[in-house]
Amino acid sequence: MKRKDLLDLQSLDVDEIAYLLDTAESFGEVVARPVKKVPTLRGKSVAMLFFEPSTRTRTSFEAAAKIMSADTYNLTGTTSSAVKGESLKDTLLTLDAMGIDAFVIRHGASGAAQLAAKYVPHKPVINAGDGTHEHPTQGLLDLLTIRQVKGRLGGLTVAIVGDILHSRVARSNVWGLHKMGARVRLIGPPTLLPAGAENLPVEVFTNLEDGLRGADVVNVLRIQLERQDAAFFPSVREYARLFGVSRAKLKGAAPDVTVLHPGPMNRGVEIESALADDAQYAVITHQVTNGVAVRMAALFWLMGANQGDL
Amino acid sequence: MKRKDLLDLQSLDVDEIAYLLDTAESFGEVVARPVKKVPTLRGKSVAMLFFEPSTRTRTSFEAAAKIMSADTYNLTGTTSSAVKGESLKDTLLTLDAMGIDAFVIRHGASGAAQLAAKYVPHKPVINAGDGTHEHPTQGLLDLLTIRQVKGRLGGLTVAIVGDILHSRVARSNVWGLHKMGARVRLIGPPTLLPAGAENLPVEVFTNLEDGLRGADVVNVLRIQLERQDAAFFPSVREYARLFGVSRAKLKGAAPDVTVLHPGPMNRGVEIESALADDAQYAVITHQVTNGVAVRMAALFWLMGANQGDL
Amino acid sequence: MKRKDLLDLQSLDVDEIAYLLDTAESFGEVVARPVKKVPTLRGKSVAMLFFEPSTRTRTSFEAAAKIMSADTYNLTGTTSSAVKGESLKDTLLTLDAMGIDAFVIRHGASGAAQLAAKYVPHKPVINAGDGTHEHPTQGLLDLLTIRQVKGRLGGLTVAIVGDILHSRVARSNVWGLHKMGARVRLIGPPTLLPAGAENLPVEVFTNLEDGLRGADVVNVLRIQLERQDAAFFPSVREYARLFGVSRAKLKGAAPDVTVLHPGPMNRGVEIESALADDAQYAVITHQVTNGVAVRMAALFWLMGANQGDL
Repeated sequence: MKRKDLLDLQSLDVDEIAYLLDTAESFGEVVARPVKKVPTLRGKSVAMLFFEPSTRTRTSFEAAAKIMSADTYNLTGTTSSAVKGESLKDTLLTLDAMGIDAFVIRHGASGAAQLAAKYVPHKPVINAGDGTHEHPTQGLLDLLTIRQVKGRLGGLTVAIVGDILHSRVARSNVWGLHKMGARVRLIGPPTLLPAGAENLPVEVFTNLEDGLRGADVVNVLRIQLERQDAAFFPSVREYARLFGVSRAKLKGAAPDVTVLHPGPMNRGVEIESALADDAQYAVITHQVTNGVAVRMAALFWLMGANQGDL
Repeated sequence: MKRKDLLDLQSLDVDEIAYLLDTAESFGEVVARPVKKVPTLRGKSVAMLFFEPSTRTRTSFEAAAKIMSADTYNLTGTTSSAVKGESLKDTLLTLDAMGIDAFVIRHGASGAAQLAAKYVPHKPVINAGDGTHEHPTQGLLDLLTIRQVKGRLGGLTVAIVGDILHSRVARSNVWGLHKMGARVRLIGPPTLLPAGAENLPVEVFTNLEDGLRGADVVNVLRIQLERQDAAFFPSVREYARLFGVSRAKLKGAAPDVTVLHPGPMNRGVEIESALADDAQYAVITHQVTNGVAVRMAALFWLMGANQGDL
Repeated sequence: MKRKDLLDLQSLDVDEIAYLLDTAESFGEVVARPVKKVPTLRGKSVAMLFFEPSTRTRTSFEAAAKIMSADTYNLTGTTSSAVKGESLKDTLLTLDAMGIDAFVIRHGASGAAQLAAKYVPHKPVINAGDGTHEHPTQGLLDLLTIRQVKGRLGGLTVAIVGDILHSRVARSNVWGLHKMGARVRLIGPPTLLPAGAENLPVEVFTNLEDGLRGADVVNVLRIQLERQDAAFFPSVREYARLFGVSRAKLKGAAPDVTVLHPGPMNRGVEIESALADDAQYAVITHQVTNGVAVRMAALFWLMGANQGDL
């Protein structure tokens, strides 16, 4: 069951996803301790290559690595050799030669993580978001959060709302949820739904109320406000009115509907601010906590087995 | 005597300030060791949220945390989700949910640290400078330095010179010194003195020689050169002539007068370069060393008691 | 044989260079371990002051320090007090006063590291590249790589190709190789050769084929593409045609010629891309690995002896 990389959820099988969720569940206990430090990855190093800015994902991976006693190296687009025009390949080969043991990469180009994985054929690469392709650890943390709240994934109806077209979070959710037996719905304006949605294992809705009917879980995607200029939607106000998720809009969903959001939120746009803070529905901070546990599981899965008796 | 946060010196009482100074005194011994590492905060994490740039304060807090074996996370304005428009509240809730144990925050808005402290009601927040309000660890390190040099704080006359209006350092000094029994004088051009100075426990001077007469300690504030454009003072040369502190200008002060500066210095503007380097008067590097000890004391005060027998 | 600083190779003697290479050789074994962590510099701190951006050099030093258990502090030009106009001197005095134990500095001005070394008279300074002057750890890692591949340095003919005029790598190579008994050739267009080349212990060539004839080692320098605008060479294509090193151009060199490049590479400009990846000639990733070992040796040389029985 051992793989070299974690690039997507589409290519993982059910056992692999279940293993990652179970491992994350047990690491969750470590994250909750007052003294958060285990020696699992002592003497190992993890490079964070973030060609797009991100507080939460980078810090979450950094926390996962540090809790496991790994050394971390931050290389962001602006401070790295990117300014000297070094290619992704040469950057990776250089870090590989320095003895870096694993790579976490976020990049604006879909497929960048897969390329990276080829450039370092003996070292793990974890995709922390590549273009509009996938963001597998976000998908896993969403799955873990849903499983904890609902007790299961199989048979649930999960609605994903918003800018599906550009969302790597949506794609990782679709594949992860589908594999684990959930029914997935995509809801958004036609301009923000992907062209090939009919080839995905999903139902597509362009009306929010229809899509939310009977849903057990609603995963509200962040809307990129700058997409407005590119005419993907007419105005922020119009988007909020038609696709913003609020407690009122959840009337037709399951009575115990659970609301997720990958963050950072545009409060009052894609999600009602009061809903985001309403513990009866929202599990958004719970998702964040699970993010650290899921990333510990991913690092352990890919790096831990090299460790022998450590 | 335990508090959740360190937001200002105005709300601390004498015992709390004395406790912090005494604790810093004993941590000073650790900072002076060749091997600077104690396990006090092992397995704990401290996030540095610096929305304004700062080498010295950020590095000083980072050193304090690392010497005590905490893990540190740097989140600066430019690399954080600030670029995605995430609010301070959501940034803090996210880091809280990741298991970050304490927050050090610097922000351009007065009151930002207090807001932050409300957003994370179970975690310590340390104010590393908020707008023109306070910078309590700077105040404490100034107090500690003065107490070490003079053997006491009570009964001393301390003159603070410069841009009082915009200075959080001045405000933390005023409150800390006043509470510990020192007499405080503020000296500056009328345009750089705060409107409500008559409500502060201070004497106000607009003439440098008058204000320095008999002073035991002079705390020279950094002048923000960009204030010149906003017409707070006519020119750098004019400011240096009237309010720049030099050995010649110290003639009327106490014979053993001590000179502090929070750094970074504009040598030749608010302070004569030779005076800054003259060990007979200046204790500026001593202040910097005390900064690490004071920040260790602050972290220990707020985080240490959770630790049980560690 | 103990020195305070490592500022250049020009002032080192043969024994010192040999000691550093031998020490790096033994640290190379640590870098190759699955668990890369030794307690040599535990409780010590190293500040990385990079006033010019650099992924590889900064990360290499950071890895060297972390493998030896030192704490590291990153201070880059943009996030440091440089934005407040603090001088290099005051920045160093501040970090010194905070208890930082050693300084790694990269700066655009030739001589900056030497100045820095004077400002902190009791702490080690390592030059990580100063203007067009020297980059001694790059020189040492080139020497170590050549010695490992060829079994010796004495008697070898080493050709350095490219923009010699602006290259601190070239200067450190010239001095290191000359002292260790190699014959050094400089090859480049007349506009990119330094004025005083006749005072260096080198032979100068303005024709690539002539310079490569019989060479045992070729060190290909990075060309700064922005120099083209300053008219140092007519065009990138022209430069690549005349001075780009390829397998075809190596025909006249020694049959077992070895090719080095300090990186980051402009593939297809100063070096043929296929040559860079051809393990028969190129040892570029080997250089990178040696970089970490050499920097460990430098840190150990300058900091280790303070350590007593550690």
